[in-house]
Amino acid sequence: MGCKTNDELLNLVTEAKKVTSYGHVADYIPALSKADRDDLSVAVYHVDNTCTYAGNVEKLFTLQSISKVLALALVLKDYGKDYVFTKVGMEPTGDPFNSIVKLETINPSKPLNPMINAGALAVTSMIVGKSNEEKFERLLQFIQQLTNNQAIHYCEEVARSEFETSWLNRALCYFMKQHGIIEGSVEELMDIYTKQCSIKMHSLDLAKIGAVFALDGIHPETEEKIISKDIARICKTFMTTCGMYNASGEFAIKIGIPAKSGVSGGIMGVSPYQFGIGIFGPALDEKGNSISGIRLLELLSEKYELSIF
Amino acid sequence: MGCKTNDELLNLVTEAKKVTSYGHVADYIPALSKADRDDLSVAVYHVDNTCTYAGNVEKLFTLQSISKVLALALVLKDYGKDYVFTKVGMEPTGDPFNSIVKLETINPSKPLNPMINAGALAVTSMIVGKSNEEKFERLLQFIQQLTNNQAIHYCEEVARSEFETSWLNRALCYFMKQHGIIEGSVEELMDIYTKQCSIKMHSLDLAKIGAVFALDGIHPETEEKIISKDIARICKTFMTTCGMYNASGEFAIKIGIPAKSGVSGGIMGVSPYQFGIGIFGPALDEKGNSISGIRLLELLSEKYELSIF
Amino acid sequence: MGCKTNDELLNLVTEAKKVTSYGHVADYIPALSKADRDDLSVAVYHVDNTCTYAGNVEKLFTLQSISKVLALALVLKDYGKDYVFTKVGMEPTGDPFNSIVKLETINPSKPLNPMINAGALAVTSMIVGKSNEEKFERLLQFIQQLTNNQAIHYCEEVARSEFETSWLNRALCYFMKQHGIIEGSVEELMDIYTKQCSIKMHSLDLAKIGAVFALDGIHPETEEKIISKDIARICKTFMTTCGMYNASGEFAIKIGIPAKSGVSGGIMGVSPYQFGIGIFGPALDEKGNSISGIRLLELLSEKYELSIF
Amino acid sequence: MGCKTNDELLNLVTEAKKVTSYGHVADYIPALSKADRDDLSVAVYHVDNTCTYAGNVEKLFTLQSISKVLALALVLKDYGKDYVFTKVGMEPTGDPFNSIVKLETINPSKPLNPMINAGALAVTSMIVGKSNEEKFERLLQFIQQLTNNQAIHYCEEVARSEFETSWLNRALCYFMKQHGIIEGSVEELMDIYTKQCSIKMHSLDLAKIGAVFALDGIHPETEEKIISKDIARICKTFMTTCGMYNASGEFAIKIGIPAKSGVSGGIMGVSPYQFGIGIFGPALDEKGNSISGIRLLELLSEKYELSIF
Repeated sequence: MGCKTNDELLNLVTEAKKVTSYGHVADYIPALSKADRDDLSVAVYHVDNTCTYAGNVEKLFTLQSISKVLALALVLKDYGKDYVFTKVGMEPTGDPFNSIVKLETINPSKPLNPMINAGALAVTSMIVGKSNEEKFERLLQFIQQLTNNQAIHYCEEVARSEFETSWLNRALCYFMKQHGIIEGSVEELMDIYTKQCSIKMHSLDLAKIGAVFALDGIHPETEEKIISKDIARICKTFMTTCGMYNASGEFAIKIGIPAKSGVSGGIMGVSPYQFGIGIFGPALDEKGNSISGIRLLELLSEKYELSIF
Repeated sequence: MGCKTNDELLNLVTEAKKVTSYGHVADYIPALSKADRDDLSVAVYHVDNTCTYAGNVEKLFTLQSISKVLALALVLKDYGKDYVFTKVGMEPTGDPFNSIVKLETINPSKPLNPMINAGALAVTSMIVGKSNEEKFERLLQFIQQLTNNQAIHYCEEVARSEFETSWLNRALCYFMKQHGIIEGSVEELMDIYTKQCSIKMHSLDLAKIGAVFALDGIHPETEEKIISKDIARICKTFMTTCGMYNASGEFAIKIGIPAKSGVSGGIMGVSPYQFGIGIFGPALDEKGNSISGIRLLELLSEKYELSIF
Repeated sequence: MGCKTNDELLNLVTEAKKVTSYGHVADYIPALSKADRDDLSVAVYHVDNTCTYAGNVEKLFTLQSISKVLALALVLKDYGKDYVFTKVGMEPTGDPFNSIVKLETINPSKPLNPMINAGALAVTSMIVGKSNEEKFERLLQFIQQLTNNQAIHYCEEVARSEFETSWLNRALCYFMKQHGIIEGSVEELMDIYTKQCSIKMHSLDLAKIGAVFALDGIHPETEEKIISKDIARICKTFMTTCGMYNASGEFAIKIGIPAKSGVSGGIMGVSPYQFGIGIFGPALDEKGNSISGIRLLELLSEKYELSIF
Repeated sequence: MGCKTNDELLNLVTEAKKVTSYGHVADYIPALSKADRDDLSVAVYHVDNTCTYAGNVEKLFTLQSISKVLALALVLKDYGKDYVFTKVGMEPTGDPFNSIVKLETINPSKPLNPMINAGALAVTSMIVGKSNEEKFERLLQFIQQLTNNQAIHYCEEVARSEFETSWLNRALCYFMKQHGIIEGSVEELMDIYTKQCSIKMHSLDLAKIGAVFALDGIHPETEEKIISKDIARICKTFMTTCGMYNASGEFAIKIGIPAKSGVSGGIMGVSPYQFGIGIFGPALDEKGNSISGIRLLELLSEKYELSIF
């Protein structure tokens, strides 16, 4: 078992940073565009409750698409997998994460998996709660539990900015509303979804969530069983088959670490029974994944043989 | 020049009615589903200001998709074709009228033509007016002018019903808003669009509008030039290439009359320099066209050689 | 009725030639790439058996896609429209002429119309004959009859060149063979089809064929009824809705002349009861239509009001 | 480590057989249609060179799509991954295994992964050899080495039958030839490919190949290193993300065993460092996977916790 000293990580971060100049910070959300392209931090949270890291691992960033896997875990807890998978499928797609085409061409209409935007919106629409506030509060508490950090909150500025510009996500929602996949107010769903995407944390928090998945749902600090082994397994499977947008297949072949990325530049990785990984590197490649984050995971996977395959 | 006696028309209507039992009344809008499947009426308004007809040609129905060609004529008047065709294309598609696929797969995103829903929504979004009310008022006045009938209004029940259920059209709108094809509030656009689709008239009114197109834009009663010859020509071309949903090609081959249909069962046809045709037959075929209306136009076209080809 | 002097045509040709520099000669077939980009000739064959022209109207070129409408006329004669339209549809598509996508996505699989490659291959596969030689011979004789010119033959060099490189057309054929749309040997079909595309003529011949369609199937010179009025009408309809690749809709709106183009730079146009038009201008626009040929038809249509709409 | 007695397996086979009546034997190849729908056999070849089994594990069947992963391993040995992945991608698709659509819509054209037919044909076209015979001979020898069984051969009847009817695969080949993904004669490629699909073995052989992958490329009997650890890993990854047609995602979620199926009803599974699995159950579900084979793997995975996630 490796990856146990900060120096090892620092060397890999230094190497991985070389590719940041080939990436671009997401610019479609003003708040994201202010990020520093050259940032790269990584935290590795071991199942034995130790942590190694490199870079500024306390810099906050928003989860964006990483939140998809957490919302999925919550609704799987709420409803069980049988119901959840009547609303969203389990198949990877070869399409971009925001594509609407297959909602029309597949019969009956159903988002192919919960990691593409359509599927993630369907998942969020299932969060239990009497009001929109209660639904979001439940998600937030779940994430506070996963990080064992009550200070986790969302960034109002980013949430508002996304709420005011997410036309494509609204198109996906209305298409699914037409086909009975989601119900209720699209604006309310957009409100929760943009808040969910705007939940802030730092690499250390993110690594800790990864460690919960690495331990089949048990929190390494609190030893609490937060999610069942079955749900942890389902989430890791989706991270492997669909976690890195439409570069997931290549990532599985080359790196083989269950991982989920977001356009803020975050990546959460899982090395089962070893550790969780939290990365923040805001320069993105053309598929929307952190360019230096992927390079770092490639170096980690090679050095410590982390591929699950 | 034929089609000059009511008896001729009545014979054809009797023949055409035989196919109504193979059709179905649109049921996705409650107000439409109340229509009588066996209804069939036709009015032929000649350019010499005479009119022949058969059936109850004063029964009111809503325009639905027939309104697309009238809104197009209005925005072509307002903006000229150069601007209008930056927002909507001129090509027929082989896809259903409510398809969203090509908005994603064609680059840059642009609805292929103004007769599919996406294109029609883009057209309606261009209607000039300081407020939503003014925009709709202008369209209504234009249609009153085309029919020379100040009593033309819209059906509030149908408009409300469509406004409350048009999720797919909202999906199209938001997708286009994402790509800068439409601007402003989608809900306001849906308000005008559903009112536009709910404008009521009867076969006689509709035939009169057809006669305006047959006379290159001049009203046969008032002799007023309502639209330019160029705009009349453009509208007739779209009616020919895209007017009958994705059965337009077959209709052009078999019948060859520039025509536009709506899911209420209305069809407006044009025989250039001869007459306009207004039909109401609410039983639809599987493509959404009036089944007896199409049969009637086929009989008319064969008997009087009305194909423009 | 205009277009009666060579001087009028020469002025329009001079004007139209200005756009040739924006076009490109087809380069995927070596024999075609040798064409002179600045060439432009036009012949107008009037139904009164007179002819006006400008440019070198005796320069030979290959028909390419123009042959699609002639093969269609022949199989409609051979089999009648009912059978032919079980194998090929009547709907325009918004897709490129060589697209294979809709053969998979439309159920049951059937080429949407006879002017796209898939549909044209299905049409050619229907030509009657005991052997491949007899089938092609029958098509050639039909075209000799349409031009009243026994010298019409095909260019072996172009045919061979196309036969040796038409991988995409073979893909279309095998896909259709899988779905029972075509039967028999694909290589034999490719042999006829590439010969068909390589049939050579000049603008005068082509204008004469246009005149046959303008006269509802009667040859202006021989006064022979070569095809029925119904077949002539069907062909003119397809030329209008699908004749100019996926620019057909725009061409119908702007110009409104039933026309069929080929990648050699030829265009055959029809002004019903007036004349046929034959054009050769090898510089193509990005859709594969003669760039100066389209400009010339636009000038002709505006000057003489040739739009059928 | 479980699955060590034949009795355990027999119980699971008995349970799994209950679903065979919901499946159908492949009927598009006459030789396959003769299979007995109720057959189900399984062999588990442990890395310690022991074997457990249930059912008639010496009944021969053809590999069909299972051969895709073996041909991939061979060309990865021949060329290295860098070259191979210039011709074929690494991404799962949501499309059927024989789909052609993405070859047209993805730019540049490239099959998304080596487990769909297009990708598998591209892979087979890369097998090294001076002649077609030599290429196939090399593949056969490689498979004989993987099974440690010199008697492995192909079924001429099945190969001929597939060669004479594989029109869709020819369409895929010609489409790829057009885009430079494959070169040379399509008929020769079809000859190798249909022979490859027709290679016969029984469950025991198949389980042994699975064991080679389970041991990172080392044969459990001969202790020979047949493929590198890297190639074994790549193959297991593709089996996980794309091995079960467009049910791969669901299979990964529910079962989580790297596996590859074929329409003959065979499935090869891998439990890393434990054993290889060979299954033959010719009744297929609607996606083309052995219906009782999938049920059996589900029972095995649950009982022995075989999911890699």
